[in-house]
Amino acid sequence: MKYLSNDMSTLKKTSRDWALNTVAVISLLTAMPMLTHAEESSAIQVNDVTQWVDPFIGTGGDGHTFPGAVVPFGMVQLSPDTAAVSRGSDPQSEIYKHSAGYHYDDKTITGFSHTHFSGTGHSDLGDLLIMPMTGKAHVEAGSETDPDSGYRSRFNHNAEKASPGYYSVELSDYKIKAELTTTARTGMHRYTFKENEQAHVLLDLTASIYNFKNKVIWSDVRVIDNQTLLAYRSTNGWAKQRDMYFAIKFSRPFDSIELINQDNSRYRCNGCLTKKGSKPSTIVNSAIQYTAGKAIKVLTHFKDANTEPLMVKVGLSAVSRKNALENLITENPGWDFDDVKLQAKKQWQEQLSVVQAKGKKSEKRQLYTALYHALQAPSIYQDVNGQYRGVDGEIHQADGFENYTLFSLWDTYRALHPLLTYIAPDKVPNMINSMLAHYQQSYDNMLPIWSFQAHETWTMIGYHAVSVIADAYLKGIRDFDSELALKAMTDTANNPKYDAIPEYIKRGYVPMDKLSESVSITLEYAYNDYTIARMAEAMGKKYIAKTFYQRAQSYKNLFDPSVGFMRGKNSEGVWNPDFDAEDAKLMGPFTEGNSFQYTFYVPHDVNTLIDLIGGDKAFEERLDLLFNKELSHEKIKEHEDIAGLIGQYAHGNEPSHHIAYLYNYAGKPWRTQERIRQIMDTLSSDQPDGLAGNDDVGQMSAWYVFSAMGFYPVAPGDLSYAIGAPQLPEISLNLANGKTFTVKANKLSKKNKFIKSARLNGKPLNRSFITHDDIINGGTLTFVMSNIPNKHWGIETKNRPTSMSTH
Amino acid sequence: MKYLSNDMSTLKKTSRDWALNTVAVISLLTAMPMLTHAEESSAIQVNDVTQWVDPFIGTGGDGHTFPGAVVPFGMVQLSPDTAAVSRGSDPQSEIYKHSAGYHYDDKTITGFSHTHFSGTGHSDLGDLLIMPMTGKAHVEAGSETDPDSGYRSRFNHNAEKASPGYYSVELSDYKIKAELTTTARTGMHRYTFKENEQAHVLLDLTASIYNFKNKVIWSDVRVIDNQTLLAYRSTNGWAKQRDMYFAIKFSRPFDSIELINQDNSRYRCNGCLTKKGSKPSTIVNSAIQYTAGKAIKVLTHFKDANTEPLMVKVGLSAVSRKNALENLITENPGWDFDDVKLQAKKQWQEQLSVVQAKGKKSEKRQLYTALYHALQAPSIYQDVNGQYRGVDGEIHQADGFENYTLFSLWDTYRALHPLLTYIAPDKVPNMINSMLAHYQQSYDNMLPIWSFQAHETWTMIGYHAVSVIADAYLKGIRDFDSELALKAMTDTANNPKYDAIPEYIKRGYVPMDKLSESVSITLEYAYNDYTIARMAEAMGKKYIAKTFYQRAQSYKNLFDPSVGFMRGKNSEGVWNPDFDAEDAKLMGPFTEGNSFQYTFYVPHDVNTLIDLIGGDKAFEERLDLLFNKELSHEKIKEHEDIAGLIGQYAHGNEPSHHIAYLYNYAGKPWRTQERIRQIMDTLSSDQPDGLAGNDDVGQMSAWYVFSAMGFYPVAPGDLSYAIGAPQLPEISLNLANGKTFTVKANKLSKKNKFIKSARLNGKPLNRSFITHDDIINGGTLTFVMSNIPNKHWGIETKNRPTSMSTH
Repeated sequence: MKYLSNDMSTLKKTSRDWALNTVAVISLLTAMPMLTHAEESSAIQVNDVTQWVDPFIGTGGDGHTFPGAVVPFGMVQLSPDTAAVSRGSDPQSEIYKHSAGYHYDDKTITGFSHTHFSGTGHSDLGDLLIMPMTGKAHVEAGSETDPDSGYRSRFNHNAEKASPGYYSVELSDYKIKAELTTTARTGMHRYTFKENEQAHVLLDLTASIYNFKNKVIWSDVRVIDNQTLLAYRSTNGWAKQRDMYFAIKFSRPFDSIELINQDNSRYRCNGCLTKKGSKPSTIVNSAIQYTAGKAIKVLTHFKDANTEPLMVKVGLSAVSRKNALENLITENPGWDFDDVKLQAKKQWQEQLSVVQAKGKKSEKRQLYTALYHALQAPSIYQDVNGQYRGVDGEIHQADGFENYTLFSLWDTYRALHPLLTYIAPDKVPNMINSMLAHYQQSYDNMLPIWSFQAHETWTMIGYHAVSVIADAYLKGIRDFDSELALKAMTDTANNPKYDAIPEYIKRGYVPMDKLSESVSITLEYAYNDYTIARMAEAMGKKYIAKTFYQRAQSYKNLFDPSVGFMRGKNSEGVWNPDFDAEDAKLMGPFTEGNSFQYTFYVPHDVNTLIDLIGGDKAFEERLDLLFNKELSHEKIKEHEDIAGLIGQYAHGNEPSHHIAYLYNYAGKPWRTQERIRQIMDTLSSDQPDGLAGNDDVGQMSAWYVFSAMGFYPVAPGDLSYAIGAPQLPEISLNLANGKTFTVKANKLSKKNKFIKSARLNGKPLNRSFITHDDIINGGTLTFVMSNIPNKHWGIETKNRPTSMSTH
Repeated sequence: MKYLSNDMSTLKKTSRDWALNTVAVISLLTAMPMLTHAEESSAIQVNDVTQWVDPFIGTGGDGHTFPGAVVPFGMVQLSPDTAAVSRGSDPQSEIYKHSAGYHYDDKTITGFSHTHFSGTGHSDLGDLLIMPMTGKAHVEAGSETDPDSGYRSRFNHNAEKASPGYYSVELSDYKIKAELTTTARTGMHRYTFKENEQAHVLLDLTASIYNFKNKVIWSDVRVIDNQTLLAYRSTNGWAKQRDMYFAIKFSRPFDSIELINQDNSRYRCNGCLTKKGSKPSTIVNSAIQYTAGKAIKVLTHFKDANTEPLMVKVGLSAVSRKNALENLITENPGWDFDDVKLQAKKQWQEQLSVVQAKGKKSEKRQLYTALYHALQAPSIYQDVNGQYRGVDGEIHQADGFENYTLFSLWDTYRALHPLLTYIAPDKVPNMINSMLAHYQQSYDNMLPIWSFQAHETWTMIGYHAVSVIADAYLKGIRDFDSELALKAMTDTANNPKYDAIPEYIKRGYVPMDKLSESVSITLEYAYNDYTIARMAEAMGKKYIAKTFYQRAQSYKNLFDPSVGFMRGKNSEGVWNPDFDAEDAKLMGPFTEGNSFQYTFYVPHDVNTLIDLIGGDKAFEERLDLLFNKELSHEKIKEHEDIAGLIGQYAHGNEPSHHIAYLYNYAGKPWRTQERIRQIMDTLSSDQPDGLAGNDDVGQMSAWYVFSAMGFYPVAPGDLSYAIGAPQLPEISLNLANGKTFTVKANKLSKKNKFIKSARLNGKPLNRSFITHDDIINGGTLTFVMSNIPNKHWGIETKNRPTSMSTH
């Protein structure tokens, strides 16, 4: 089978055929041949890097990743849920823990649903839960303490496997082996029954992640024939009124089907024999089979379960039922589960092979799993015919790009998007063009803030899309309209209705009496403005550059020299009288953090920040204080996200991610090297609980990939990387321009965590940073590691990245 | 202003301009000029037939018509509601009475909403209620007993006016004169404030007709600028998940606006100053102004209300917000209320002028109001760019026709659709093509049963779309694909999942143990099959014709000679042991009726029915028994629809509509003449309660129009009309072929209700029926009336319509 999702020429032809009416579509589906595909013998070559991916990493603790099947940037994430059950039955306290539907601690599986976030702190999705059963046909999930009370099944991690594009588990209550694989827009299930009982497959349209009362605002299901269903649901979760359509096909006809409407709203059944117009909760085979409401479940029944494995495949679309069908038929026309699985694996092999590494198994497991998590989102959000739903709620046709969604920008601008410019540069223009389409479709004239699936959630602060665009533009990725992009960036930064921007422009800071989180917002605006200035400057737009370089200085207005910290200020210019550097209270001046952490948030002008704090020594002491001063639970009790602590340093949350690299700027790069190893050793592992906090759609993983290579983008958009300390003996990046950039760490060991010396392409490198050009031009960066810090390497002040000071 | 809705060439040009993104759309709207149009001096000519229309007829009693503004076949019906208030506050017992939102008995108005059914027994719609106020700004409707407790206002019929395309009322609590007018897809309000107070305009997205708990499943509103809003709501009423989008524009800027979210579901406000992420119930001006949920209201405030009238106009679309805007801009670009009103009136004048009548004022009021009610539906259901939502839920582009909706076919196949072939023949192909599109888009492979706004409600029985298509085809209206149409008709009639069709085909009747309403269903199927046979025969499809002529005999299988009535029979062939000819119980063998009424339901083969019942005399006696035998309330207490009684004859409901004409077939045409006058005198008037029951989307009105002209289509599709008795001295039909058909009733008076003699184009006419050809060829049918029945006129057996006997 040819993987079609990115082959637009093929798709165009297909979409022409689809200018047919629905009846024709249904006929087409019914006539769908049982294609078989020759197993491709070459398969995965010797250097199978997918073997190092362990999708379970991050499924324990607060990593919030999912173990199920997905292809790179795929629209469908088909994965087991251990808590995404029918409405009302979730304990609310468990919602954060189950952001990805599955948690490694859990003992039962409720089913397999088709959409999942990877690593988010807030949650949603979990669309179309499917669960196979034998014996009694349950329609309620039942409780974790009494799994026999419902359809959920016990399972054991020993009988569970996951690899890129594939997941399998033994549902021990039913003696069913369940396997999952995907294409970009479809999910495929294979259920192998061990005993020859009657089997049942439940589709629970009420199940969801972040499921609270009345999350499902509407749903319906329609029987097309005895192998085919169409379904729909709209949910009010994190995204309001998020629509998802499903085309569902079984590999063999069901013997009977029940449409179960548990809704209290009125219901009319047509052709339900004996009583016309009555309101049954279950519709039987002989009637026109359609039902709609807020609580719908479907039970299909199959005799002689174990004659052959039963497969179910599901096409998804955010546009329409017709498109869901088209996605299914186009991408996943046959029933060769193993081939679909193989194609998914090949996509991962190709995508992951961009990075080649040497190291211990556990190191490669961490590295490739981090890459795997970094290559999932932003993800495809358009149908094979190019249609997608825009943030305006309208259906649009993607023109010249592939539409992507899931912009967790407050997290991912930091390291994920900069990393993608190297490991998936062909996808970056799609992401930027998708953000520009969002801007054009936005009634608020804004680039995305934290958006997914046609919805702007307005979650978190700043307008970090500008950083992502500027970083890519300045790196020479320009397959987008840069004039439009700059307009979008300045329109966003000048929006009079967004988060006190007029106050920020007028006063140079956001007054704390006007808006909560005012210090964090001011600091992040200032950095964002720096990236706008950088791009404007590169485009020759001097006035815009000047304006935004000026705005980028705004951080200075909230540094209070009397306390030596960033501090809230009101509109009268009076400092926050209740200042406490450790205070992280909700609705206070900081966002998921305190002044200890946020005072370091001047990534674009660290040198000036050092001056403000009192010079290199004071700055180093402040960094040490951050890492050494214990943060009391009392201060952060309102935050689930502030996790992975070393003192006040919270590796589990983004505001800290650049901080360990700041010792470099105070002329103490060995202190950075030490801290990176400390973080790696204490807050990262190749186990399910190996992530110190939410992976946040790949940001934590991108931090890991950069840091393992030995450098990190402290201020994306300035094109420099602070050198930390390499953690694997050798990592190579196979760049899109055909060149390779290799980092070698000679003599690296548990003890040898310090850089003794470095050479770039054979020449001594004495600076503690490298540039984008150093990477993109290819070559080899060789470190010699030692157990003794080299306090003379990389310390020259003149070599510090000093982006702001040049303007 | 040129009225554009039917000018597709103009629209095509416009829609090209609309290949713009939303931002451009908004710019376009903002830049919308304040067009003024030269008042067209010609206006309405001397013979202003719109003067005879009284939209209040039918708004009392159980007529269920609405008094508000609409253009012929318009998508928007902007009308006052007296009971369509916020969710949960309607007394459920009043729902039937308020099917059209307004009832003449009521003393208060809750506001003006934009969509209304005319005359239905079931209800829905009432989209986007708008209410102007002065003084306290209410957000709840308040109670009818204490109007001051909410936004509703007292009103008086003396200060209320309605004419085609226009409605006005004095809202006495607020001293506001409210005026309404419409284009096809937009509504326009003009509020004139008598006192210079602050004014408020409330938009209540929770208000609805047939409003029960949780009818609104989702809604949102967005402020575009200080004159423009976009809104959306989806409701679960009679139609499930019916989507409607609104573009709202005020004639001058509001001073402030409040978006009020009364929903309990979570809500995030962006830019709501002081507290980021907090959940206010009201969003103030300074934030990004958008809210979504299940209970949303909007309050706008205007200073100095009486400086000039405040206007509000609303574009509607079932497709998207963008299309709602486009509809508004295209059809109603300016602010000249009087011109929009004039254009609406001109459309009515043109459409109503097809009929010219002489008679008393009260007679002309009844006749033209009946025509007015007959010219409203099926109604336009597509946007100016040709897009519409299909029954499959998908967005379609109308190709070669204009899409219509609202097919109340169980009612309207009888007289409304046959009438439309004369008074609006240009619309008939649109209606048929819309039904064929429905068939093609239907997942159930069915023509519409009772459908509206992209939903099949499966209400009532039979498949009467086949009658409408066959009648039009046989009359030579053929601007549709007749092969496709015949396929749609036979597919519908053979659908294995619809209402026991396999049983009907197998046994020749629907067994009462298989499905309720089995006798009514069998009888109506038999008639429907007759019309399929007629069309197939005309198309030369002999096998189909033969098959369906055979099926058309099925009525015989349920006539029990032992009781002389149609009677339920079970699948063993055993007659219903509990037979009672008067029994009309729900879920019994009859549909909103009893065996007394339904035994007469063999419209296509009355002669054979007469034989079954025992000949002309027995048949006449049975008819007399029907009209004379009182129907006890106990028998029909479950039915609101069985109304307008003369004995067992229920003029208020459709199964009786043809029965008074059946005396003709027994050789007693004077008895028909007498009964028609009896019905006219006792069950029809020009007063608000002048309809004896639901107008049923024009069916009752079409009965009136035909009967007033003196003839009626007993079996649409057989191209004959039974002559009753003319009720006006002269009525002319101006036919589309340029010819005129005139019926004159010389010497007609209160006493002279009998036909003494008749001439067609000067030649004596002695038959008690005329044919379609008699009408369409134009000419004059002249009756001479008398107070004495002429028992020799029109009685020859050979002249009876005998459609079935010829096959």
